[in-house]
Amino acid sequence: MVNYDEYLRTALIAAKEAGAVIKENFHKDKHVELKGAVDLVTETDKKCEELVLSTIHKTFPDHKFIGEEGSAAQGFTDELTSEPTWMCDPVDGTTNFVHSFPFVCVCIGLAIDKQVVVGVVYNPIMEEMFTAVRGKGAFLNGSPIHASACSSLGSALAVSEIGVTRDDETLDALFGRISALTKQVRAVRAMGSCALDMCCVACGRAEISYEIGFGGPWDVAAASLIVEEAGGKVLDPAGGPFDIMGRRVLATNSHLAEATSSILSGMKLGPHEPRPAQ
Amino acid sequence: MVNYDEYLRTALIAAKEAGAVIKENFHKDKHVELKGAVDLVTETDKKCEELVLSTIHKTFPDHKFIGEEGSAAQGFTDELTSEPTWMCDPVDGTTNFVHSFPFVCVCIGLAIDKQVVVGVVYNPIMEEMFTAVRGKGAFLNGSPIHASACSSLGSALAVSEIGVTRDDETLDALFGRISALTKQVRAVRAMGSCALDMCCVACGRAEISYEIGFGGPWDVAAASLIVEEAGGKVLDPAGGPFDIMGRRVLATNSHLAEATSSILSGMKLGPHEPRPAQ
Repeated sequence: MVNYDEYLRTALIAAKEAGAVIKENFHKDKHVELKGAVDLVTETDKKCEELVLSTIHKTFPDHKFIGEEGSAAQGFTDELTSEPTWMCDPVDGTTNFVHSFPFVCVCIGLAIDKQVVVGVVYNPIMEEMFTAVRGKGAFLNGSPIHASACSSLGSALAVSEIGVTRDDETLDALFGRISALTKQVRAVRAMGSCALDMCCVACGRAEISYEIGFGGPWDVAAASLIVEEAGGKVLDPAGGPFDIMGRRVLATNSHLAEATSSILSGMKLGPHEPRPAQ
Repeated sequence: MVNYDEYLRTALIAAKEAGAVIKENFHKDKHVELKGAVDLVTETDKKCEELVLSTIHKTFPDHKFIGEEGSAAQGFTDELTSEPTWMCDPVDGTTNFVHSFPFVCVCIGLAIDKQVVVGVVYNPIMEEMFTAVRGKGAFLNGSPIHASACSSLGSALAVSEIGVTRDDETLDALFGRISALTKQVRAVRAMGSCALDMCCVACGRAEISYEIGFGGPWDVAAASLIVEEAGGKVLDPAGGPFDIMGRRVLATNSHLAEATSSILSGMKLGPHEPRPAQ
């Protein structure tokens, strides 16, 4: 059996390096409408990406990457193959970062044979390091975490997407989903980081999180393993199997997957929102 | 001139005492559907309330209180008079507390001549102590805080109510407001604590927070002063002056009060939602 710990060690080093850069720039003013402020966000993003990629690339030069940008020379590819492939979001929650809103994280996931085997999600502001290695459980700052035991929708806390698309049809679809959920669960929250939302499910702070139309697999790869290793479920919001490339995710504790997907599967989608796989 | 520092000192002691109790019980499992679990929430709430009240009552035996429950013998009253009157919510964000979701706080405000003069909002989980004394600025863990300088709705982050009422008409009104705001601002968040939402505005993490139909003045008294002393504005969501007894609040930075209230003032209200004062 492969020892994934070596991959986890490297992911942790990369996450801490990027996290330190996020933390360093977190409280600086990024509001002033000057070139300098915009640059601080772009710069932080770029610097974190370089740190994460170079740390991984240096250690595993043959591994592939799937990311928002990157050259083939660095190992970047658009397609998920069975080769070891890293999916990293160096700053998840960019809007939160701009506003110094404390839900920002570094996401680092590694898939082998198209299956995520190592996942790290690190919020350097709240000092929360979520980690998982396939088959070995999920951890928050080194302590084991578990999805909650809540088995009734009416007692559940759901963390919702709020999205970035702002046309009327998409907003109608978005609020249709949130409203339908709100009617059934105890309460709804929205934090603005898909990966941290999923980690809330993994550590039992929430029972449900979902998002349709996020950026790509780098937003969810690491967190999907953390949820599963914490005993939760990761699936398509319409109830089918989770497709890591599909830009659609529902994470729940072990009890509420079906109840939640049966609410979400019936809802109409915005014109540009990704559809479930056939 | 009166020295309000003595009141602040007492409020701080009370907030820290209650905060310690919240923190002690925060990570205990409150999900199991047993009498013991329900009791833990009720017990924590009760214990925190007793601590806050007794600390204040001991130091200022003639002061009044407005709260959810309390006897006249303890100084409780339903009406806000010009006498020194404390408005305290020992555990704001009870649902978050139940779920170990880290947005929970102790709120302690003191009004004299119907004006809040001291405000303390303490989140013991994130170790954030927001404080203000009228005329002396607002602070987070002892450092001055300021509402943001953002002057365009399109660049603003708004923290929204999500409410607790679940009838269709109220939900329609609620999501009508959130949706109307979402169309105009950069992004919306929902955290489930009215006081902490307002403190986000005070420290520049968000530009806007609002809520219609919260419990009472104890939810907003302290935070309203913190926002004002941070250079922000506190008003009625429909644009009129803030009525501390009115269960309606809009907090913004100094630039976006009018733009936001002109969105919210046009929206229909649920059948049981409080109306703006005439």
